[in-house]
Amino acid sequence: MAIKFAKRMDGLKGSEIRELLKLTEKPEVISFAGGLPAPELFPVEEMKEISRMVLEESGREALQYTTTEGFGPLREQIAERMNRKLKTNVSKDDLLITSGSQQGLDFAGKIFLDEGDVVLVESPSYLGALNAFKAYCPKFIEVPTDKDGMIIEELENILETTENVKMIYVIPDFQNPTGKTWSMERRERFMDVINKFEIPVVEDNPYGELRFEGEILPSLKAMDEKGLVMFLGSFSKIFCPGYRIGWVAASEELLSKFIFVKQGADLQASTISQREVSKFIDVYDLDAHVEKIKTVYKKRRDLMLKTIDETFPEGIEHTYPEGGLFTWVDLPKHLDARKIMEKCLEKNVAYVPGGSFFPNGGKENTFRLNYSNMPEEKIVEGVKRLADALKDALAQDANA
Amino acid sequence: MAIKFAKRMDGLKGSEIRELLKLTEKPEVISFAGGLPAPELFPVEEMKEISRMVLEESGREALQYTTTEGFGPLREQIAERMNRKLKTNVSKDDLLITSGSQQGLDFAGKIFLDEGDVVLVESPSYLGALNAFKAYCPKFIEVPTDKDGMIIEELENILETTENVKMIYVIPDFQNPTGKTWSMERRERFMDVINKFEIPVVEDNPYGELRFEGEILPSLKAMDEKGLVMFLGSFSKIFCPGYRIGWVAASEELLSKFIFVKQGADLQASTISQREVSKFIDVYDLDAHVEKIKTVYKKRRDLMLKTIDETFPEGIEHTYPEGGLFTWVDLPKHLDARKIMEKCLEKNVAYVPGGSFFPNGGKENTFRLNYSNMPEEKIVEGVKRLADALKDALAQDANA
Repeated sequence: MAIKFAKRMDGLKGSEIRELLKLTEKPEVISFAGGLPAPELFPVEEMKEISRMVLEESGREALQYTTTEGFGPLREQIAERMNRKLKTNVSKDDLLITSGSQQGLDFAGKIFLDEGDVVLVESPSYLGALNAFKAYCPKFIEVPTDKDGMIIEELENILETTENVKMIYVIPDFQNPTGKTWSMERRERFMDVINKFEIPVVEDNPYGELRFEGEILPSLKAMDEKGLVMFLGSFSKIFCPGYRIGWVAASEELLSKFIFVKQGADLQASTISQREVSKFIDVYDLDAHVEKIKTVYKKRRDLMLKTIDETFPEGIEHTYPEGGLFTWVDLPKHLDARKIMEKCLEKNVAYVPGGSFFPNGGKENTFRLNYSNMPEEKIVEGVKRLADALKDALAQDANA
Repeated sequence: MAIKFAKRMDGLKGSEIRELLKLTEKPEVISFAGGLPAPELFPVEEMKEISRMVLEESGREALQYTTTEGFGPLREQIAERMNRKLKTNVSKDDLLITSGSQQGLDFAGKIFLDEGDVVLVESPSYLGALNAFKAYCPKFIEVPTDKDGMIIEELENILETTENVKMIYVIPDFQNPTGKTWSMERRERFMDVINKFEIPVVEDNPYGELRFEGEILPSLKAMDEKGLVMFLGSFSKIFCPGYRIGWVAASEELLSKFIFVKQGADLQASTISQREVSKFIDVYDLDAHVEKIKTVYKKRRDLMLKTIDETFPEGIEHTYPEGGLFTWVDLPKHLDARKIMEKCLEKNVAYVPGGSFFPNGGKENTFRLNYSNMPEEKIVEGVKRLADALKDALAQDANA
């Protein structure tokens, strides 16, 4: 049989990471590979009450179709929280509810990208976004980053010398995979450049509220005077991922495109999930819930970084995430994190090799660690196993 | 500002139907325009108990991420129901859970269609599918239909003379918009042609279980010996649309593509919704629930058709749907259902003008009526108002 697929399918082969994550699912593996929130923090008891209330008060509406834009009261609540925390100035009419923020990434690709168009991304960047965009066959250009975020001179240089840049994808807060956060100065300069070149920006912010120290910085969307920034938010990390509720905040022209695309893609997000999340925010205190999550994750970050510093061999560097779920490890250049991962799996510990986060390849001497999903004792034990694997790799290398 | 969108966005303008449906939302309008199930049949009380059980028994898992393929027990339940009712031979490993069957349509477009590729569809066909496919910029060729379904000679002729036919989209059971069902003979001959030309088929079957009379016919998927048929199913019409749970059943090669695409599009369907639907099937009797729905819809169909026959002027034809949600009206050729719709809105009654269901235009003398969403007394009153509007149109026409 000779079924012919669309050209875009050539680039969407089985993900190596996906295969790897399957290996990490065995209960004996201490996995720092995924990006899962801590399930012990999910408000299970509260949601029992909430689901009863929603069905009691508006069961027929909750189980029926709703508008593509999404449940009005939830959009109002999201707008209020964004404006309060991220200094934006959005209303419910600037918002579309999506099936997680991942769907916003797919839609952005669909709306902007023809084959061969250029997307700028931080180097490295979120693998799930790269995969979503790949379905539209763009070229990726990686903009170099330092500890304060995207390097603006490099960005400006690329924009001056590159045709067909259709959008820029960034994660300014507790970036996936590096855990880095852009400084205020960097945000301002970024927006100056964006306003000059008038390039649409996808600002992905699933972790922004999970700041363990310091002040939450204004989002790029808050500094967006020309309606160029599409902000993607999510309840997955500050509440629960199982409902698949995220959102896009964008100016009227851009949002209308997202709404058309949502209509064709799956009509609407789950009516009942939207109402349940909304009711939770009404009845309980989401801010207090976020504080609880932050306390636990901060402790886990502290413990992971402390154990890394105590046990990892010399010459290995890691980032210092001020929030979010991930830290990022840089090995000496000659080490290959994919190969070391095989040894780690023998020791029942896992990470994600960093190479996959660079769309154009390279930097195989890096890996991403997640600290949100493992209890404290496993973090200590897991990092120790990692340290052993790294010491073995260095020793083997010295002998070779 | 000169934001440049992808070429595909040129074809995705605001839908006229969408604007029209907004006008029908006023409470005084008797709307036969939408395709909503009857909310009074939703198992609200049962779902209160189900959501409590799911959160009690597996709250943390229900609120966490899950696999892209979807909740295993639900996929087993779907496979069992399909095999029993539609004579298929599928297992859970042949299934991917999607965000409604609409998402399966979008994915089929993404998997198969490059710009300019040809999709064959029944003439007329489901507007939501046409819109989903349009995002991938194909050409549509409409295959003529009669009361027994697609006309196979026409299909064969098109396949023999057309390059780049990448897929065929069909709704063999209680088609949207016509309410027609393919005969057994037509299904067999269709599959003979498909097997000969080896063209992938998207079989959309959201209403198949809602048969008011006669036997459920085997689905095309049940006759698929070469793994060419992708079956799209949904709980929206036999249970509730608010959960957004549908599925794709396909052979391993095709399903693997859907899984890659799902991963990039939104990672997975709602974990908790999948578990709730599954638990409902475990604890309650979904078949009995479907019987309840069928009883009500049959009564509404009978009443609508009877009132049409009693009140509509001569020269107007309608289909006789043996199940599903819709009937289809053919007016004398010189009448324009879009224009008459304006008069109908003045009388507070609404339908969907049929022209939009023909991707290449034409047949403006048709409209679609939904009978599932209005209570009996409104069906009678609404059809009478329609009859008045049609009489006015004919009279005006005679005077012109």
